[in-house]
Amino acid sequence: MTLRRSRHNNPRPNIYAIILAGGSGVRFWPLSRESSPKQMLQIVGGDTLLRQTIQRINGFVPPENIWIVTTEDKAQDIRFHIESLRSIAEKIQFIKEPSGRNTAPAIGLTAIYLHRLSPESVMVVMPSDHAIPEKENFLSDLELAIQGAKKNYLITFGIKPSRPETGYGYIKANRSSKTEVKGLLKVKCFVEKPDLETAKTYLSDDSYFWNSGIFVWKTSKILSEIEKHLPSLYKTLREIEGLLFSDLNVRNDPNILNRFKDRYSCLENISIDYGIMERSHKTLMVPATFQWSDLGSWSALDEMIVKDDGGNILRGNTIDIGSQDSIIFAGERLIATLGLKDMVVVDTPDATLVTPKKRAQEVRKIVEVLKRSGREEHLIHKTVERPWGSYTVLEKGQGYKIKRVVIKPKAKLSLQLHKRRSEHWVVVAGEARVTKEDQTYLVRTNESTYIPKQTRHRLENPADAPLQIIEVQNGDYLEEDDIERFDDDYGRLTNDQ
Amino acid sequence: MTLRRSRHNNPRPNIYAIILAGGSGVRFWPLSRESSPKQMLQIVGGDTLLRQTIQRINGFVPPENIWIVTTEDKAQDIRFHIESLRSIAEKIQFIKEPSGRNTAPAIGLTAIYLHRLSPESVMVVMPSDHAIPEKENFLSDLELAIQGAKKNYLITFGIKPSRPETGYGYIKANRSSKTEVKGLLKVKCFVEKPDLETAKTYLSDDSYFWNSGIFVWKTSKILSEIEKHLPSLYKTLREIEGLLFSDLNVRNDPNILNRFKDRYSCLENISIDYGIMERSHKTLMVPATFQWSDLGSWSALDEMIVKDDGGNILRGNTIDIGSQDSIIFAGERLIATLGLKDMVVVDTPDATLVTPKKRAQEVRKIVEVLKRSGREEHLIHKTVERPWGSYTVLEKGQGYKIKRVVIKPKAKLSLQLHKRRSEHWVVVAGEARVTKEDQTYLVRTNESTYIPKQTRHRLENPADAPLQIIEVQNGDYLEEDDIERFDDDYGRLTNDQ
Repeated sequence: MTLRRSRHNNPRPNIYAIILAGGSGVRFWPLSRESSPKQMLQIVGGDTLLRQTIQRINGFVPPENIWIVTTEDKAQDIRFHIESLRSIAEKIQFIKEPSGRNTAPAIGLTAIYLHRLSPESVMVVMPSDHAIPEKENFLSDLELAIQGAKKNYLITFGIKPSRPETGYGYIKANRSSKTEVKGLLKVKCFVEKPDLETAKTYLSDDSYFWNSGIFVWKTSKILSEIEKHLPSLYKTLREIEGLLFSDLNVRNDPNILNRFKDRYSCLENISIDYGIMERSHKTLMVPATFQWSDLGSWSALDEMIVKDDGGNILRGNTIDIGSQDSIIFAGERLIATLGLKDMVVVDTPDATLVTPKKRAQEVRKIVEVLKRSGREEHLIHKTVERPWGSYTVLEKGQGYKIKRVVIKPKAKLSLQLHKRRSEHWVVVAGEARVTKEDQTYLVRTNESTYIPKQTRHRLENPADAPLQIIEVQNGDYLEEDDIERFDDDYGRLTNDQ
Repeated sequence: MTLRRSRHNNPRPNIYAIILAGGSGVRFWPLSRESSPKQMLQIVGGDTLLRQTIQRINGFVPPENIWIVTTEDKAQDIRFHIESLRSIAEKIQFIKEPSGRNTAPAIGLTAIYLHRLSPESVMVVMPSDHAIPEKENFLSDLELAIQGAKKNYLITFGIKPSRPETGYGYIKANRSSKTEVKGLLKVKCFVEKPDLETAKTYLSDDSYFWNSGIFVWKTSKILSEIEKHLPSLYKTLREIEGLLFSDLNVRNDPNILNRFKDRYSCLENISIDYGIMERSHKTLMVPATFQWSDLGSWSALDEMIVKDDGGNILRGNTIDIGSQDSIIFAGERLIATLGLKDMVVVDTPDATLVTPKKRAQEVRKIVEVLKRSGREEHLIHKTVERPWGSYTVLEKGQGYKIKRVVIKPKAKLSLQLHKRRSEHWVVVAGEARVTKEDQTYLVRTNESTYIPKQTRHRLENPADAPLQIIEVQNGDYLEEDDIERFDDDYGRLTNDQ
């Protein structure tokens, strides 16, 4: 153990961890929302999936070699989300896709940037929302993969099946033929998700592996493979490179950025598996020694979380009598279950899901109904995380809205103004420093203040303990976009609280 | 129809409707709570079961002949609950049991009171929480029952089975032998809840009926039958009569009332069915022409509510995809269900129940767990009805509690004081008149006021529209019993908001 650890304690300068974090994770609704996708949830393990993914690779590579690839609209939320990783967080780089175009364009774009920076670099491409509890095994396997990558192979990780899973794609490996790197296997072919009968035969045949979606290759090699197998994508990527690197000031030129967006949004929507891996002849596979799950739906938790005697996974405020093999995710409200069998129940403050496990992957259909009917339950949670803390909508009524606002020690909201609503603030914990036009004053626990509409104001926590206020808004329009910002610690001067 | 109606339009002065409303209805948790038992819920039909029961009999008997029998602790809540029946409500009489002792003692006590008032009276004894949608058929059958009662029989109502129900007791009637009143049948015996096989044979045998628990008899007759079959109960009832009617001032004499409580609490806990009906030789049965359900559990709704094409009953804010034969009761929060089969999901602001229909009658087990663990979810709802309006606890946190308080037009809360909490009030709709020690002032929409602890205060709605305020309480103790009342429109000077 000590030996292994020391082995990973010299971060490799030329290895880059590329974390794909653009997914929306509708399959974990109602816990996941557009503003809180699956990678930002703590479903298994002691932290969110994204932060676990970063921690898994940090140290193996230096933090500045950790690149997060995500869409522009998610980048700020993710930036706030990883802030708790302290000193690592500020070193992590972001590649922002103008829009989501699947993994081949996202990886291609990243390779373009990375190749400019370091032509000899090796990319470790990882989804941000998978579960891999065994870090040491993962890093050992990764060492092996890097050896293969350095010999110009595209390396994928195959997971030994533990059940006849029909929800994964499979890799058929060639166990008999030798490869240049001991321990790596040749890939015969990639196989689509099988039916149950086929999956059972795969389970008893040791040449089949689950396709984990984790890849390692040289940056130069993936670019040449894209050139070969996806020539049209390659051509546009090179044009984009021309745009982005023609001028050092490009990042601030809206014309160039718009052309970049245009080009990117027309890229072929294709996965790296389908576009490259299945076509390339340069693939090798690491037979992984670690436990893995893609957490594709609520029912996937079964393999990753220890169950009670009845086979149930119970979390939060639950009372259960006699249920079996069920997953109950509650929050603060009481979820009482009686005699369930193979069910999933997930409760959040504004929505609850109830479905049999075997239907759990269809939850996206509910999200589609919500979208079509113009509802909000798929977009945001009642509690919204912000760089300065969080707010929770406790109730919305005719002409009023009530929020609980929690401000971190020493943090402050922007200097702002609302055109159509006034705000009553009651401090229920801590001490607030309030700016109201030219005045600045303290409001202590059990004191209140009033901010009329059209009044510049700022809320600040000057103390070392969290500040908690209850805000009662009054007005004829109470949406978040009624905000004008004049100054902000977090660089937000658009309409976004 | 016109003829029938006119027939019931001359209220019978000597017929008394005795409505048994002492039940707690734990089987409809989480919609029912101790403070909102089943009879106070609107589960089927356009009103609550208790108010439907009152409306069903009102007009057939004069409103002052409607007596509600309930326990002392429920009486005030029920009094508030029936207030919406306006002019009827104030004429309705209450018989308050000092504690719940089953139906034989409750009916015996009522007979004692009624026999004093009217020795020749006829009692129509009805549960308050059953569903009988067909009022006219019920009243026609009742006419028949009264004829039998006047001839000194104990009359029960038998319901023609429509399915092999194992949850009801049955009556075996004698169809061949004639009775003194045409249309009434002799009762051969009462039969315990059968198993499914037996229930199927009952269904195909036209002499078996469901025992509805509705009874009609002369007050003098039920007393003489109690004397015969439950002599010890009879003896104590007579002692209680001696206590209660020995002195006109008895109602205010705490000594006498305590002795009454003592005696009552030691009465045999026995049902009228088991104690009298099964033992008496003077029973006759009306073969009922109306539809009936005792609504014994959530699954009983199946027979009383029209279902959608999938056999589902959906109420409130629901999205369902492909469920079958399920009951989904939602409130304002979204309940999303996918592929359920024969399930019950009931959502309330602080608790949600999920169970298969066939386990629904076991929900009382959950209530028992809640009781044992000292929780509150079986006691009250987040919204509590009060004579002046209602309040809803929106959130409880460390050192604070937030309520939405709605005050009816022209209503006022008591003049009160809290020792350990202060209150911030923000008016979000309407106009409040606030009394704070010697001051009285108006607080309008979007204005607020502050009531420090240890301060006498009163909240009043002087206007014709509802007043709505958000109350933020601060203090180290925030329970409802921190209240001292000085004046109250509703005669409440104990610790009960």
